[in-house]
Amino acid sequence: MQEVNLGLYFLSEFVGTAMLVLLGCGVVANVVLARTKGNGGGWLLINWGWGLAVFAGVLVSAYSGAMINPAVSLALLIAGNIEFVWFLIAILAQLVGAFVGAVLAWVAYKQHFDEEPDPALKLAVFSTGPAMRSYGWNLATEVIGTFVLMFVIFAFADYGDIDVGVPGGLGPLAAVPVALLVVGIGASLGGPTGYAINPARDLGPRIAHAVLPIKGKGSSDWAYSWVPVVGPLLGGAIAALLAPVLLSLA
Amino acid sequence: MQEVNLGLYFLSEFVGTAMLVLLGCGVVANVVLARTKGNGGGWLLINWGWGLAVFAGVLVSAYSGAMINPAVSLALLIAGNIEFVWFLIAILAQLVGAFVGAVLAWVAYKQHFDEEPDPALKLAVFSTGPAMRSYGWNLATEVIGTFVLMFVIFAFADYGDIDVGVPGGLGPLAAVPVALLVVGIGASLGGPTGYAINPARDLGPRIAHAVLPIKGKGSSDWAYSWVPVVGPLLGGAIAALLAPVLLSLA
Amino acid sequence: MQEVNLGLYFLSEFVGTAMLVLLGCGVVANVVLARTKGNGGGWLLINWGWGLAVFAGVLVSAYSGAMINPAVSLALLIAGNIEFVWFLIAILAQLVGAFVGAVLAWVAYKQHFDEEPDPALKLAVFSTGPAMRSYGWNLATEVIGTFVLMFVIFAFADYGDIDVGVPGGLGPLAAVPVALLVVGIGASLGGPTGYAINPARDLGPRIAHAVLPIKGKGSSDWAYSWVPVVGPLLGGAIAALLAPVLLSLA
Amino acid sequence: MQEVNLGLYFLSEFVGTAMLVLLGCGVVANVVLARTKGNGGGWLLINWGWGLAVFAGVLVSAYSGAMINPAVSLALLIAGNIEFVWFLIAILAQLVGAFVGAVLAWVAYKQHFDEEPDPALKLAVFSTGPAMRSYGWNLATEVIGTFVLMFVIFAFADYGDIDVGVPGGLGPLAAVPVALLVVGIGASLGGPTGYAINPARDLGPRIAHAVLPIKGKGSSDWAYSWVPVVGPLLGGAIAALLAPVLLSLA
Repeated sequence: MQEVNLGLYFLSEFVGTAMLVLLGCGVVANVVLARTKGNGGGWLLINWGWGLAVFAGVLVSAYSGAMINPAVSLALLIAGNIEFVWFLIAILAQLVGAFVGAVLAWVAYKQHFDEEPDPALKLAVFSTGPAMRSYGWNLATEVIGTFVLMFVIFAFADYGDIDVGVPGGLGPLAAVPVALLVVGIGASLGGPTGYAINPARDLGPRIAHAVLPIKGKGSSDWAYSWVPVVGPLLGGAIAALLAPVLLSLA
Repeated sequence: MQEVNLGLYFLSEFVGTAMLVLLGCGVVANVVLARTKGNGGGWLLINWGWGLAVFAGVLVSAYSGAMINPAVSLALLIAGNIEFVWFLIAILAQLVGAFVGAVLAWVAYKQHFDEEPDPALKLAVFSTGPAMRSYGWNLATEVIGTFVLMFVIFAFADYGDIDVGVPGGLGPLAAVPVALLVVGIGASLGGPTGYAINPARDLGPRIAHAVLPIKGKGSSDWAYSWVPVVGPLLGGAIAALLAPVLLSLA
Repeated sequence: MQEVNLGLYFLSEFVGTAMLVLLGCGVVANVVLARTKGNGGGWLLINWGWGLAVFAGVLVSAYSGAMINPAVSLALLIAGNIEFVWFLIAILAQLVGAFVGAVLAWVAYKQHFDEEPDPALKLAVFSTGPAMRSYGWNLATEVIGTFVLMFVIFAFADYGDIDVGVPGGLGPLAAVPVALLVVGIGASLGGPTGYAINPARDLGPRIAHAVLPIKGKGSSDWAYSWVPVVGPLLGGAIAALLAPVLLSLA
Repeated sequence: MQEVNLGLYFLSEFVGTAMLVLLGCGVVANVVLARTKGNGGGWLLINWGWGLAVFAGVLVSAYSGAMINPAVSLALLIAGNIEFVWFLIAILAQLVGAFVGAVLAWVAYKQHFDEEPDPALKLAVFSTGPAMRSYGWNLATEVIGTFVLMFVIFAFADYGDIDVGVPGGLGPLAAVPVALLVVGIGASLGGPTGYAINPARDLGPRIAHAVLPIKGKGSSDWAYSWVPVVGPLLGGAIAALLAPVLLSLA
């Protein structure tokens, strides 16, 4: 393994995850909050918004291999691609970045938060919630979705012409494929839980929701908050264990 | 022809088709089942969902050339790209993979299946059905759709920079073009029959629908089930016969 | 200029244009005809359908540089990229191909044509028509749309990594960019006339509409038919004249 | 820094921005004006329309590095990528190009402008306006959106395989990534202000709206006009200052 500057590693994951969450929470705000131009724009708009949020996030965090997701970092740790200290630094950076990205999305849509009467829609901009609450089934959906994400990323890893990540993870040429993958996961597996598939993407903004002075906000739904943390970590870990068995890379 | 490990060949087609069908059935579940976040999301959402399902499926089955479709395997057999024993192994793997993918999609959307009152929509998640039933015309539509799929794939095959498939079939760099092709076929030719264009994609999930304990399910519509098997096989075979005549590859 | 086999040249333009029109007319059928699965799917679905129709058409007509459009052929003739006899052969092939593609689209959607009560929607599957009829303004819109198409294609021509066309025209690596360009032209300039931007795409299917035994069909609207022929040819010619002046290729 | 022909530099920015604005204003016209084929087509249609407008604009202005946006030019000036005289020439060319593009969009949709009863929708085709007017918050949204645009473009700049811009700025291989980025910014951050993120894109068409003999037009809303000029310039400048600090390019 090569030499890594831990400060730059932190910065890279911080910047990438902030970008991801700014754009990701932004598209939900655009679709659900009162009086926006994209109000009622539909699920496919949300899917493209989050997919291209990943695209932008990957492009700005090349130094650290653009994990921008603790489930990805855990999978790469299990797979032996990154060291434990990098893992710790990465998930801290991802959490802080997700918090900052959510704050910026709130600033960009400030007036629409103020105008929106429904507190549940305000929370929906920040964090995921289940369409039908049942922790077991919700967890299963998040495990499957994140398994798909990480399993396909492991398939990328063998193709030198797609992946130029440093060290392990995704390089800039993977930005388009990963974006398309996330559009697809959202379209196909996002229906029951809103596809967190990333603990930082959900927990960071939930903390922001809890601490920000959002006009007329309601509960931050901490009872559900463990599902989009545990589910993605499990899904990523399973992908790390199964990828060497199931993928016969060319 | 090069040496092929038949176990890995089976595994590769199994994994790719399972991924394809998990994401493909998933997007239909999201659009049609009760209380999902993508409910009523429209045809273009379904087209992108299936197209990106192909994208993910191709990326995880590079070893076997990512056929993940018996119609593609038959066409490559006729064209002399694969051997007969590979063909048999591939279509078995595809069928088993499609069954497993459908089961996973059912798990991911379990509560929404339970909540959905209409048995026809439950079946629609698993298998295709005609908008207007007429076996002859439905067959014609499936033949044309699959011909387009396979004919354009044969056009890919000559471009070294797109295709790096082993041995015959599609490599990872073909994942984006094939995904776009399937989005296009769905948009343009999916209106009458829901574009099976793949016998395994239709039959595997139909078997899953028949055997799974789906709450309130109805008929698996076996009367129609031969159309999305025979139509795609015919379409693929016609493409294999016409491609050498009609394509003047550069 | 290199040696060209005129028979293969004809075949290549025929196959590409048939593919283009099959998928292009197909998506309109899916959106407008009664009881299809994509009924009412919206303008963006039509835009992606036509864009990806171009994608597939370009991939299967690499031999001739994938013009599949008399306006493109005229522009390349004016620019000195193709010889006059090639031009004549190409536009004949394009017209015949467009006719055949439209017949196949009719077969794929046969039952939905029979079921659809509105003759205007049946014609709309085959050929374009103005949202507000005024030959002068309709012509202006078609000129502008086709100018954009051809002007940007001329910009491609200088980039060896995009264009590998033989001889002149577009190679397979241009399939994605040209598809995106056509999605964009449809989204942005298709509102008034339905963006023929291709005389063969409009005239070939209009002849098919006139001669096919379509149940309950109405007028083929020959009074308008010259607009989507003359407009695109003018737009292509203007692009050929202005590209050398306005494009400072790198 | 290399030798630059200032006339060609002007021409390149002029052509690129005219193309951008023709297609960009065109898609808004298609979605909002009376009796168009894309009427009511939704926010995602607008996002793809503007994204692919950038795509086309970048492809036709390779000579000057395809800035086609004064905020990009200002950021490149601050970053030391272009000289001050180039900057002045570029923003003049961008403004003139945006004016000409808007006039062409008006011609393409002339009848629909005449037919549309609402003057606010006529202005919306030309220039952006806030969903909820509050100059401070509107400015913040434009700053954030343009910061994202320019910050990610700076991330491109280090990848030789994406960027081949001359001198500084974006080359043709950046056309697809930048288009996707603009689709994403529109989806995620366009809700409050309609994402000008480009002073020329807003001011040029606003001048066109003011001077063109548009039937039944209303105010050009000059009171708001400074926001989509100042906000993008600020956002671009902040990106130029933060990119060297926050981006650890590989």
